[in-house]
Amino acid sequence: MLTNMHIAVIGGDARHLEIIRKLIELDSKVSLVGFDLLNSGFIGVERSSVNELKFNEIDAIILPVGGTSLEGEVMTTFSKEKVVLTEEQIKRTPSSCTIYSGISNDYLDSLTKKNNRKLVKLFDRDDVAIYNSIPTVEGTIMVVIQNTDFTIHHSKVAVLGFGRTGMSVARAFQGLGAKVRVGVRRPEHIARIVEMGMDGFYLQDLEKQAQDIDVCINTIPHLIVTSKVISKMQSHAIVVDLASKPGGTDFRYAEKRGIKAILAPSLPGIVAPKTAGTILANVLTELLEKDAEKRKEKE
Amino acid sequence: MLTNMHIAVIGGDARHLEIIRKLIELDSKVSLVGFDLLNSGFIGVERSSVNELKFNEIDAIILPVGGTSLEGEVMTTFSKEKVVLTEEQIKRTPSSCTIYSGISNDYLDSLTKKNNRKLVKLFDRDDVAIYNSIPTVEGTIMVVIQNTDFTIHHSKVAVLGFGRTGMSVARAFQGLGAKVRVGVRRPEHIARIVEMGMDGFYLQDLEKQAQDIDVCINTIPHLIVTSKVISKMQSHAIVVDLASKPGGTDFRYAEKRGIKAILAPSLPGIVAPKTAGTILANVLTELLEKDAEKRKEKE
Repeated sequence: MLTNMHIAVIGGDARHLEIIRKLIELDSKVSLVGFDLLNSGFIGVERSSVNELKFNEIDAIILPVGGTSLEGEVMTTFSKEKVVLTEEQIKRTPSSCTIYSGISNDYLDSLTKKNNRKLVKLFDRDDVAIYNSIPTVEGTIMVVIQNTDFTIHHSKVAVLGFGRTGMSVARAFQGLGAKVRVGVRRPEHIARIVEMGMDGFYLQDLEKQAQDIDVCINTIPHLIVTSKVISKMQSHAIVVDLASKPGGTDFRYAEKRGIKAILAPSLPGIVAPKTAGTILANVLTELLEKDAEKRKEKE
Repeated sequence: MLTNMHIAVIGGDARHLEIIRKLIELDSKVSLVGFDLLNSGFIGVERSSVNELKFNEIDAIILPVGGTSLEGEVMTTFSKEKVVLTEEQIKRTPSSCTIYSGISNDYLDSLTKKNNRKLVKLFDRDDVAIYNSIPTVEGTIMVVIQNTDFTIHHSKVAVLGFGRTGMSVARAFQGLGAKVRVGVRRPEHIARIVEMGMDGFYLQDLEKQAQDIDVCINTIPHLIVTSKVISKMQSHAIVVDLASKPGGTDFRYAEKRGIKAILAPSLPGIVAPKTAGTILANVLTELLEKDAEKRKEKE
């Protein structure tokens, strides 16, 4: 339970509704900023503008998954209010106040570092990344079905990378009957891929492998699907790039060659906002509960 | 090979391009009616209007998957010409001429019966239905992802029917991590479902089963998802009905209760026209080759 914890949710999207629901369920005191357009009927929560928020009473701040802009602005899907997170506000929080965000940037990093507040980047966590790979996989399947005139079943699919997302993607496409091969660097990854009944290859051979594939799904966050690789592909091949922006594909060259290449880096919030919210809510409340226990021990 | 076979493709859609391609590959003589807007560059085929077609020389007629309308009209995606298949035309064909269609209706049935021509309804064939279940499954996955805010993974999915399509749907959703239960009538189906690691239930218990499911996929072509069943469902549940029109769902009641119910009876041609065309082309040419062999034996 989160009794006595005062948590401020500042901005966010549909995913944050699941987080708020769970925070209420666990008996925390919840303050919402940037949810004034929402008629969700949350009971017992306090809504305010960011200026009215009593930062000095806040034990934890939950930001949108994107954190802030480089000017400190916070994205608010459910409000037209411009919300900016300032240094003055952070200074007013208790020193034990933790800030939770999906990702971070220079602004948020320096704001928290300078004022010695703990910043938790949820998307850096392996558990979040693995759970998030589930809606990512389903979004990838949707994108491939929508953008091809052939079935995934029996098509030749190359998955690049075998990390937290790559393994999930490879398994799901194999399950749908695709002929999956996975491009990696490490021999132990090849071994695991073979154990799972798929084919593995080394990324140095990607140009050769590209010749007969129908679908290429990249999860590696640096340029890997180069113009050389794309030039080898069949004209009906499609590239789906799941790596965070700017992806790992030479999109300019793909367009020039007429190969369909789609950058789709944040599918969970798009295809399954409820599940994506539940994932964040579960991990967040686990972390908050640990925090609450530590505070109790100190008392 | 189909050397010396003269085949007329009269009307059709993108799927027929695969069929035409394969007929050319197998060296048959191909006449096209209803493809005048198409610049596909098929070499060696003869294009004509339906009136110019030499019906007396035709060994086989391939119609659109929908056959004809009740007035004999043939659907032509690649032409603005109105094409009608008349009794007079059929009478002119050699008595051995076979007519291939996806489905039939009273017009086509009586036309072929009265004139003693063989009519092959491809969609009645088990092999076609099972192959077609592959793109159907992928289309179903797409429809479910598009119409829910939660993942298929971990959701409770009820599949109704365990025939040619039901088995494929159940397996695919299980592969994506859904908790699949299949509603059937026969104990041997329950046994197979259990063997495959899923749960089976008898359709007489559907009302009870409906209470906690997230997704209901029907493959049974008569009213089975009744108002009583729908009234038991959770408000976020979704029904996807794959049975041929009018489906097996009380859509009127579903709408009244605010349950999303989607009739999606012909997904293969929509989500994967190329694969759907290849499926038809493979089965068709197998049948045509058998026909050609028989003709040779008779000579």
